Amino acid sequence: MKIDVSTYMDKFLDSKLVEKYSNRKDEIFQKLNQANMNGWLNPDVSFVDQILEVRDEVLSHSKCLVVVGIGGSFLGAKSFYELFTPYFKKNDFPIIFAGTTLSSTYMKELLEYLETIDFTVNVISKSGTTRETALTYSALKKLLERKYRPEEVKKHIIVTTDPVKGTLRDEVNREGYRSFIIPDNIGGRYSLLTAAHLFPLSFCIDVKELILGYKEGVCLQDDAFSYSVCRRSLFDLGKVVENFVTYENNWYYYLEWLKQLFGETEGKDGKGILPISMIHTRDLHSLGQFVQEGNKIIYETFFKINNMPICDIDGKDLHKVNLIVEDSVISAHVSGGVPCIVIELDDISPRSMGRLSAFFFLVAAYSGYLFDINPFDQPGVEVYKAEVKRRLG
Amino acid sequence: MKIDVSTYMDKFLDSKLVEKYSNRKDEIFQKLNQANMNGWLNPDVSFVDQILEVRDEVLSHSKCLVVVGIGGSFLGAKSFYELFTPYFKKNDFPIIFAGTTLSSTYMKELLEYLETIDFTVNVISKSGTTRETALTYSALKKLLERKYRPEEVKKHIIVTTDPVKGTLRDEVNREGYRSFIIPDNIGGRYSLLTAAHLFPLSFCIDVKELILGYKEGVCLQDDAFSYSVCRRSLFDLGKVVENFVTYENNWYYYLEWLKQLFGETEGKDGKGILPISMIHTRDLHSLGQFVQEGNKIIYETFFKINNMPICDIDGKDLHKVNLIVEDSVISAHVSGGVPCIVIELDDISPRSMGRLSAFFFLVAAYSGYLFDINPFDQPGVEVYKAEVKRRLG
Repeated sequence: MKIDVSTYMDKFLDSKLVEKYSNRKDEIFQKLNQANMNGWLNPDVSFVDQILEVRDEVLSHSKCLVVVGIGGSFLGAKSFYELFTPYFKKNDFPIIFAGTTLSSTYMKELLEYLETIDFTVNVISKSGTTRETALTYSALKKLLERKYRPEEVKKHIIVTTDPVKGTLRDEVNREGYRSFIIPDNIGGRYSLLTAAHLFPLSFCIDVKELILGYKEGVCLQDDAFSYSVCRRSLFDLGKVVENFVTYENNWYYYLEWLKQLFGETEGKDGKGILPISMIHTRDLHSLGQFVQEGNKIIYETFFKINNMPICDIDGKDLHKVNLIVEDSVISAHVSGGVPCIVIELDDISPRSMGRLSAFFFLVAAYSGYLFDINPFDQPGVEVYKAEVKRRLG
Repeated sequence: MKIDVSTYMDKFLDSKLVEKYSNRKDEIFQKLNQANMNGWLNPDVSFVDQILEVRDEVLSHSKCLVVVGIGGSFLGAKSFYELFTPYFKKNDFPIIFAGTTLSSTYMKELLEYLETIDFTVNVISKSGTTRETALTYSALKKLLERKYRPEEVKKHIIVTTDPVKGTLRDEVNREGYRSFIIPDNIGGRYSLLTAAHLFPLSFCIDVKELILGYKEGVCLQDDAFSYSVCRRSLFDLGKVVENFVTYENNWYYYLEWLKQLFGETEGKDGKGILPISMIHTRDLHSLGQFVQEGNKIIYETFFKINNMPICDIDGKDLHKVNLIVEDSVISAHVSGGVPCIVIELDDISPRSMGRLSAFFFLVAAYSGYLFDINPFDQPGVEVYKAEVKRRLG
């Protein structure tokens, strides 16, 4: 993995601005080391073997897993699931991610579909009170109770929640469901190496490879800090939007996850860089025009993958063409006044993507501190919730 | 359909600013009426019966349609296909949209999948030279030539292109393929009512309903102009990002299409509003924090659907809950300093969505003129293409 925050920055950043933020390095490293919510720096993953046991048992009686969770209890697992699921071949053991919507069409069709298939529910919520999660879980539990005898239902529910308190923990204690915990010192968007993500992911990837990569990624502090300084400096120059750019369609959810990570971390006190994403080459024929010649508020982070499966078209290695297009776009955007950061990955594997994810957790935390805000809370999410409560009770 | 650009605007917009842009109404209506590229205002759809004939013939020998196109030859059909395709039930006659990527993984898996199924290709390109389209079409044509005898191959290729010139038109003339035309006076992003979209859509919706709605939508000039004036005024107040918000997951591509429409129309001469999109309630637990409390550069357009299928959960009509959450979010965002526009639709049907699409074409055209740019070109897309050509030949 190679992070390049300099090649395409010369004409945009001046050294004084960069120096100003670079000088805060010791202070910020110390802040993170002393933070209450820094459990993701060195998470305990000793529960992994237990996860694999429960997975094997689920595989023995179900044809599909329904994950019920939203936000930080959804996007990490969903991202990796999409990265490692074929585009056209039917998945032997599909994972359905529910609980992220109140759409009646979606829910109706989901319930109809689940009538026809043996499934297990993994409900994930720290508090147990998130409305989407609670409503979806309630509907799925009723369906399980119609489909199976009481002692069987128990096998089809796995709960991931707070270690001691909350409505879901109470239910686990009352009903004897299998359960995993979400630790107190790891917030949702930093929770990749908790059971919230590793249990669902154990059905589709080698989670031990992911963990290995992650542990390499949390060591990239210097690279992560340079990246944070670069983006913080660009913000001061009016580049208030970061565009994450991929050339692979199956990265869509991974970039949605980065948007959550950065948007929730930085969007406070009227501050923050707005994260957006584009999938090339699709979006070169869409928002490409805006990036090239529109309002100059954007800088970009490109992901470049060195090794991909070989596909020969008309005697050309298609990935080589894709890489040449990517370099051409970077060059065209830089000439057009758009600063570009480039992150090179060897390949798209659980290990590479685990490494990249841990790297981004560091970048998000450092960036929060560089904006002088708490990188680990999300007070604004409560504002609409309070309004819903007032209207719905 | 109801467009509300006033209820939540009082605290943001002052009447002088709105008046300044409103005064340009006559001038701008005249400009559009005299524009070369305004063919979408009253498109000739007399080819529809021919489309239905070709569709029936394709249905008789194929199990799937592969649409090869990008940008304006892709997003309209893809949006409507996604809106009207069930979430879980397998589609009897799937449509695959290829030609939007140079990903070797995607292409490899696509070609492997198409080995196993009888398919027809609809290649769509005005010039015939767009790289992604040309490469994908070339690979699919070779596959067809391996699968079928020469006289059979002819039945499996339908070309949508320029009426007289270009490499694809030449091929049609040489090989005798069936073909449809893309008229000269309708640009890609305004081309919903051309064969580029109506032919693929004839496989999944009643295109006559879509046309009916569209013809109602192009009459909404006054509403469209008010919307354009509102967003142009918000831009002057530093709201440089428009967030299109849906509460239905299957709107993802429809919002991508709006992003193309506005991004390509306005993003010129260093100007333009950056269009982004969010899917609620999913993104309330992601970028919701940023919108509520982050950098105040965003205003929003919410889509509200009055009638949806009924799904009862715990004695509650789920769509009613969804609507209450939507109202709560609008209220919370407005209090947080985020101006909101609300568009109410009766339902999600080909007619409603046709109407909405034509309305947005008007909004995009008027907005372009309010920014004093040509709403119908996209010169910036050529910049990276030239760079690719330099490197690849």
